[in-house]
Amino acid sequence: MAVYTDVSFEDLEVFLASYDLGHAHVFKGIAEGVSNSNYYLQTSTGAYILTLYEKRVERDDLPFYLGLMEHLARAGIRCPTPLHSKDGKLTGSLNGRPAAILTFLDGVSLRRPTVELCTKTGRALAELHAAGADFTGKRANALGLEGWKTLANDCASSADSVADGMRALIDDELAALEAKWPSSLPEGVIHADLFPDNVLFVDNELSGIIDFYFACCDSLAYDLAVTLNAWCFEPDGSFNLTKGRALVAGYQSKRKLQEAERAAMPLLCRGAALRFLLTRLYDWLNPDPAALVRPKDPREFARRLRFHQTITRPDGYGL
Amino acid sequence: MAVYTDVSFEDLEVFLASYDLGHAHVFKGIAEGVSNSNYYLQTSTGAYILTLYEKRVERDDLPFYLGLMEHLARAGIRCPTPLHSKDGKLTGSLNGRPAAILTFLDGVSLRRPTVELCTKTGRALAELHAAGADFTGKRANALGLEGWKTLANDCASSADSVADGMRALIDDELAALEAKWPSSLPEGVIHADLFPDNVLFVDNELSGIIDFYFACCDSLAYDLAVTLNAWCFEPDGSFNLTKGRALVAGYQSKRKLQEAERAAMPLLCRGAALRFLLTRLYDWLNPDPAALVRPKDPREFARRLRFHQTITRPDGYGL
Repeated sequence: MAVYTDVSFEDLEVFLASYDLGHAHVFKGIAEGVSNSNYYLQTSTGAYILTLYEKRVERDDLPFYLGLMEHLARAGIRCPTPLHSKDGKLTGSLNGRPAAILTFLDGVSLRRPTVELCTKTGRALAELHAAGADFTGKRANALGLEGWKTLANDCASSADSVADGMRALIDDELAALEAKWPSSLPEGVIHADLFPDNVLFVDNELSGIIDFYFACCDSLAYDLAVTLNAWCFEPDGSFNLTKGRALVAGYQSKRKLQEAERAAMPLLCRGAALRFLLTRLYDWLNPDPAALVRPKDPREFARRLRFHQTITRPDGYGL
Repeated sequence: MAVYTDVSFEDLEVFLASYDLGHAHVFKGIAEGVSNSNYYLQTSTGAYILTLYEKRVERDDLPFYLGLMEHLARAGIRCPTPLHSKDGKLTGSLNGRPAAILTFLDGVSLRRPTVELCTKTGRALAELHAAGADFTGKRANALGLEGWKTLANDCASSADSVADGMRALIDDELAALEAKWPSSLPEGVIHADLFPDNVLFVDNELSGIIDFYFACCDSLAYDLAVTLNAWCFEPDGSFNLTKGRALVAGYQSKRKLQEAERAAMPLLCRGAALRFLLTRLYDWLNPDPAALVRPKDPREFARRLRFHQTITRPDGYGL
């Protein structure tokens, strides 16, 4: 949660003049997003999010992210829709940063989602995968196997300062995944970060999916593995199989997994746990002094990884 | 701008159950307030601000602040109105902090207010003073002459590290003000912190006055002096007499200053500049590691103080 770049109302007004959105009535920095600055904006025409992209989001990837949200929204997915400026652009420049205005979605994110909401989230993920099928943009997953190796290398010398055995856990897991990582599963556009804080609900109905700034092209089942890691563990670290079953059942109600995807799920879950272990470990060891958030504890995902290592068959996830 | 205390939606729901406000549809931490945590909240019944009071706001003063806002709102002042819980209370407890829900006001604050908005702000300040006249709550100004002496003492040994001559400027000014500070001007409830970020506008009409957490009982003309300091200096440090005249004229259109108040204005402006110089200097020398804001530069108010020292008659402010 952060507002890195301070935008005055006067600067906003200049920026708004390139859009057909009327005058601003409310303009507040909001504590949301770790790699960009977000403002809640209400004008005479509606409610919006103004996002300024800070360094961590690559400028070159903005057309992919914004184009994807526009594509998905047109296909009926409830996600923020970037607005076009009067001259047709999806981004402009504000205080020296690329900036975009997106529709604001009502809804609240839950810290402890119920089984019912796991089902709805699984279904929404499958719908997102279906809606993304004909999106033509391409972006490789920078946080796939190769990215993990780079992160593991960067963290190697300090990993054990965070927890005994952390370095060996990572090295051994990387070696195992490299040997067995599936390469021929169905691929498409994935969200790649569908944690509960990125899913909004109004009165227990899913009202939005947000934060597409890790979206990329990768195996669809890996996205489900990420989501399983994100939704189905309890605060005490235990895996809630009922939630796992609900998430998977929700997903399969809209897109049935192929046998190869089913079989790969234990491995994909290990990979997904390793991905968040590594990025959290990196941020833990290299805290950004400009970040207004405390880095998240990487050990949480070490525990999840160790759990997945004990699962040898897909029915361990209710599959 | 800060969210110090992280509130989950689940915790919010428990808190909301003690109010008659319906279900939450939007709940976002906002980057506002330096001494408390603020959330933007939309429910089926309207838009609100949820505030958690952190240590800097004294719990004992909350009934004064919240009672004052309620009183002023009833008298027609556009300010946040605290809501009563089902059992009639203005505060409850959330994540271990006192917390209140207040009405949300549309409007944006301006960084560089125009002359026209200075007039409107002056008028609103006089209306606030009139509306506060029959408020029975009492709170002494903790940042009056005695408070300045304490702050000056705390900062004395390090003041010159911020700017050469800072300590002498403060000591000399304190001595001068103590000798001449007016003690029999009309008193009442004052806002005491009416900076542009605490005044909201919609399409150039004043839509709200916010942040009453420095409000207290003191001389009304001192409040005007604070507001002159806050609204009538340009970014380069120069005093904009046109804005000064506009602010004063706006004020006097609703409440005519007495001759003693007029005569005291140069001194009151010096006191007001010293007050912000001292609190900024203190925060600069003692940064709060939990604060998510950079301390403001105290030297800005040293310049303003030096300007006021050159004004010997009230017509220097357009009076």
